Amino acid sequence: MKKELISGKKAPYICTPLVGKDKEEIMKELERILPQEPDLLEWRADFYEEIEDVASVLATAEEISAVGNLPILFTIRSEKEGGEKIPLTEDSKVNLLSEMCKIAAVDYIDFEVSNDPEHIKKLREVSKENGKKLVLSYHNFDFTPHNSEIMKRLFMAEFYGADVAKAAVMPQSKEDVLRLLTLTKEADEGLSIPLITMSMGSLGGLSRIVGWTYGSIVTFGLGVQSSAPGQIPIKKLKQMIELTQETVGDW
Amino acid sequence: MKKELISGKKAPYICTPLVGKDKEEIMKELERILPQEPDLLEWRADFYEEIEDVASVLATAEEISAVGNLPILFTIRSEKEGGEKIPLTEDSKVNLLSEMCKIAAVDYIDFEVSNDPEHIKKLREVSKENGKKLVLSYHNFDFTPHNSEIMKRLFMAEFYGADVAKAAVMPQSKEDVLRLLTLTKEADEGLSIPLITMSMGSLGGLSRIVGWTYGSIVTFGLGVQSSAPGQIPIKKLKQMIELTQETVGDW
Repeated sequence: MKKELISGKKAPYICTPLVGKDKEEIMKELERILPQEPDLLEWRADFYEEIEDVASVLATAEEISAVGNLPILFTIRSEKEGGEKIPLTEDSKVNLLSEMCKIAAVDYIDFEVSNDPEHIKKLREVSKENGKKLVLSYHNFDFTPHNSEIMKRLFMAEFYGADVAKAAVMPQSKEDVLRLLTLTKEADEGLSIPLITMSMGSLGGLSRIVGWTYGSIVTFGLGVQSSAPGQIPIKKLKQMIELTQETVGDW
Repeated sequence: MKKELISGKKAPYICTPLVGKDKEEIMKELERILPQEPDLLEWRADFYEEIEDVASVLATAEEISAVGNLPILFTIRSEKEGGEKIPLTEDSKVNLLSEMCKIAAVDYIDFEVSNDPEHIKKLREVSKENGKKLVLSYHNFDFTPHNSEIMKRLFMAEFYGADVAKAAVMPQSKEDVLRLLTLTKEADEGLSIPLITMSMGSLGGLSRIVGWTYGSIVTFGLGVQSSAPGQIPIKKLKQMIELTQETVGDW
């Protein structure tokens, strides 16, 4: 049960990022992404030019939902964790995320676990009140920290009451990729909430394909344009996952 | 260069076992296997009923070579490392392996690295004299020993002058599979000879698909009947390897 993020479907779920700078670009992305049938859309609103205009963001989220008819994860990735530079203050960002919790179009919001604890608590409260799920995430685009460091972030997410804990790290060797998978299995055994992990970049590709079998319930697949290094096109990702399931079963 | 076992082809090589009990069965296996285009055939002669009859073994090897037109690895897997019960003494086995080195049909012979050092030395000598390659192997069908234990066997193979070192072990957890892959990468960096490793059983399936990227140059794929637990059908194995290469490149 713990694993079921999207009702009626079993993990792994394929999530595709939307990174258009305006509604027109996003709609064009959607048109090309939808036939590839992802399970989930992540709107990376830090790419959105009108991010300061709450009404515009709300309207675009509603249009994505209406056209896509898929669960939406709303994310404003902070610049320090790999996102685009945006003009919002932390307070305005928290305010925008709160507003997004109030509309039916949005199902999940993402916030970094290293953010101000008061902000995290506020968003946990607002999201819960509105029946939305909170993903607390951690990113390292430079290297794969010690296991204890990654574990700590995942357990912090649980401590804050997140619905999902996420960690995305950069490998510097093939061994780092295997270490992240091993850690995912261990974390999954210890956490009471579902987990999303990935090893980024081209070295990390394996984790996007087989991570589900070690406990990562979502894998990010490329629709049109990637939002992080190493994302594999949805179609190939699906093929690989299906073949793995056929050949080695549920492991 | 070190990686090139079969000239003109790049690793990973797909090897398919032949486990028929007589020439007729083996020829039927071959008929079904050849259209699947493996790179290499392993004749598991411990399954062969007439193994005591040197002339019969030689004649069948020649027929496999003539029909298959593929490199042949000749193996009499010992019972204590997962093979069939055979009536040969160790001396007769060494004698048969020596005879096999003398015919053009056979390209590689396999012998366990834990066998009598004098036998290993003899076979190293005979195989070298006849321009054949020697694979020295280690199997554990119960569990995945400590890294140092597996490493030791691989380095022993190198020490004895093997052309290829092989280790096949059984995982008891998903972590064991990742540990074997990590060890493979480390061993590959330390060894001067090519390496074949695998994590067996259904848990170990991943290692058969991605082991090549960690340094294992051969993966055993199922043609008709498996010779060890967890072997994946050749066709799917090829698809998986190609997709992995396309999506994540050479890593």
